[in-house]
Amino acid sequence: MPVNAAERDAMVRALELARNGPRGVNPQVGAVILSPEGNLLAEGWHRGAGTVHAEVDALSQLAEGAAGGATAVVTLEPCNHTGRTGPCAVALIEAGVSRVIYAVPDPNPESTGGAQRLREAGVSVESGVMTDEGTDLLAAWLTVQRLGRPHVTVKWAQSLDGRAAASDGTSQWITGPDARADVHRRRAEADAIVVGTGTVLADDPALTARRSDGTLYENQPIPVVLGDRRVPEDAALRRHPRQLVHRSGDDLPAVLAELRALGAQRVFVEGGPTIASAFLREGLVDEVLAYVAPTLIGYGADGTDHPALGRLGVDTISQQRRLAVSAVQALGEDLLITAHPATEGDL
Amino acid sequence: MPVNAAERDAMVRALELARNGPRGVNPQVGAVILSPEGNLLAEGWHRGAGTVHAEVDALSQLAEGAAGGATAVVTLEPCNHTGRTGPCAVALIEAGVSRVIYAVPDPNPESTGGAQRLREAGVSVESGVMTDEGTDLLAAWLTVQRLGRPHVTVKWAQSLDGRAAASDGTSQWITGPDARADVHRRRAEADAIVVGTGTVLADDPALTARRSDGTLYENQPIPVVLGDRRVPEDAALRRHPRQLVHRSGDDLPAVLAELRALGAQRVFVEGGPTIASAFLREGLVDEVLAYVAPTLIGYGADGTDHPALGRLGVDTISQQRRLAVSAVQALGEDLLITAHPATEGDL
Repeated sequence: MPVNAAERDAMVRALELARNGPRGVNPQVGAVILSPEGNLLAEGWHRGAGTVHAEVDALSQLAEGAAGGATAVVTLEPCNHTGRTGPCAVALIEAGVSRVIYAVPDPNPESTGGAQRLREAGVSVESGVMTDEGTDLLAAWLTVQRLGRPHVTVKWAQSLDGRAAASDGTSQWITGPDARADVHRRRAEADAIVVGTGTVLADDPALTARRSDGTLYENQPIPVVLGDRRVPEDAALRRHPRQLVHRSGDDLPAVLAELRALGAQRVFVEGGPTIASAFLREGLVDEVLAYVAPTLIGYGADGTDHPALGRLGVDTISQQRRLAVSAVQALGEDLLITAHPATEGDL
Repeated sequence: MPVNAAERDAMVRALELARNGPRGVNPQVGAVILSPEGNLLAEGWHRGAGTVHAEVDALSQLAEGAAGGATAVVTLEPCNHTGRTGPCAVALIEAGVSRVIYAVPDPNPESTGGAQRLREAGVSVESGVMTDEGTDLLAAWLTVQRLGRPHVTVKWAQSLDGRAAASDGTSQWITGPDARADVHRRRAEADAIVVGTGTVLADDPALTARRSDGTLYENQPIPVVLGDRRVPEDAALRRHPRQLVHRSGDDLPAVLAELRALGAQRVFVEGGPTIASAFLREGLVDEVLAYVAPTLIGYGADGTDHPALGRLGVDTISQQRRLAVSAVQALGEDLLITAHPATEGDL
């Protein structure tokens, strides 16, 4: 049975409702229940991990039996998974819903199969309604499902010849204010920001996302420090509005799993060279941002070299980590080169 | 007295005549002698170092006294210098020329002053006629006069992270065929091409400028090798159509002076890292061409690092060699970043 205008309008509304929910471990989902005549019966949305799903939230507003013969319009395929809540497919069947329309198929192998279960119970199921809009809304969450971990961006600043500092370790400033402001904007779009203890001890970064005038962006990523050395009691990042996560960094997949469990969908790795190289070496990077300053550093009289990237595990040229450049952008006098692995999972 | 149409036409002709001469140590210069009525009396051009200047070449075609009251139209200010030939200003005065028109002022401190000497002898002198066209023709030569040495371009290929090779020294190929073709086109525009003995021994380059089909471009730069090690008897560059210049490289200004004396106006330094870094360290570079491949190399298990640039004499960040980027160009998958010193003579 084709999707009618009232059902399509209900999907627009369901997408609005979905946005009420938090971005985190669970997807943002909205649901609308229509009577057999196409009138609005109830609305619902998911309020995050541990709370009821959108369909159940909407059904809960109806008297028993009121959903008999109704149509449920949902932004994500109803789940078929018993977790902290029962499967939504079963809840819809038990409520007597006779038709379900959804935008985005459930990508999660543990919870998928809701549509099939509904059909087996005699429910009419339609998919593909406003799928693009639904996918856009869930882009970061869908990436996490696909990768099985948060999306990882590794950022570094370098001279044209690949150095992060001069021989004596000084590095302020290689890149200019426009590049630094761009980094802060991207921090505000990330859910976690990762640095090594070396960076903490050398630079004492606040790891907050700040505007040029010093004020904080609304969203502040979780500060994450990797390494065995202690973070000093008076370190600036101890004054970060979010709780510090400090791990050894010996097991990067475990760190990413922990950040995913904390709701992080986008992780921004800021370095220094040891941490950036470790993520690259282990093939855990989806995007690289190289801020390239128009300057040459090489090394000085004592031969001490500070490359922006170190041990990548490339012993011979056939092992080089090929990238595909997606953008080259001028930021003041600097260049921002955005790239991703030429072959997914190859970086 | 304003310049009339016949005189302007004569300058167009003089610029054509100038192009008959060779590009080399001396400038390309053309001259036309007009009668007081504006009729063509004689034409001349300079045929290179050791031969007469354009004005004298034209005058030599006239019978004694025939240039009395004539107008000389010359592309470069007549010289005031006694070298292998006498000063042209004096030759014009002695021939009885009463008016001189020129396009480009003489930038050479040793020979300048010709216009003033002519005026002092009562000759009418006009300058600024087709100066832009004359300057274009002499661009490379004028640069050499200004710098006191040939114009130096340093080129290197690198991974995004600044490496020229993997840990085991392998480097074929980091950049792609479009980048390599671009290098050959630029070799053909240079007068000399410089590499170190390390590059000769490692890569055995032919140092010819070749088209993609392997054929040679018409212009082949002088091959120059710097370093104390021997160039093998069977080295490919010994089959180069031009005679090899092999010097120690301990005195780069002397090498550039020697190349200037050989007529080289544009020198293309191809490396490797030791030679490129030496020219940069000594502030002898006017332009850098960084061919950046979208790849990461870092270093491998044994920690051996092969940066594209090495010792630049930058001990602390305030000594970094700032560049101004003039172009970023895609060459296949690679980027060509063209830059020059942010402050002239500072690189």
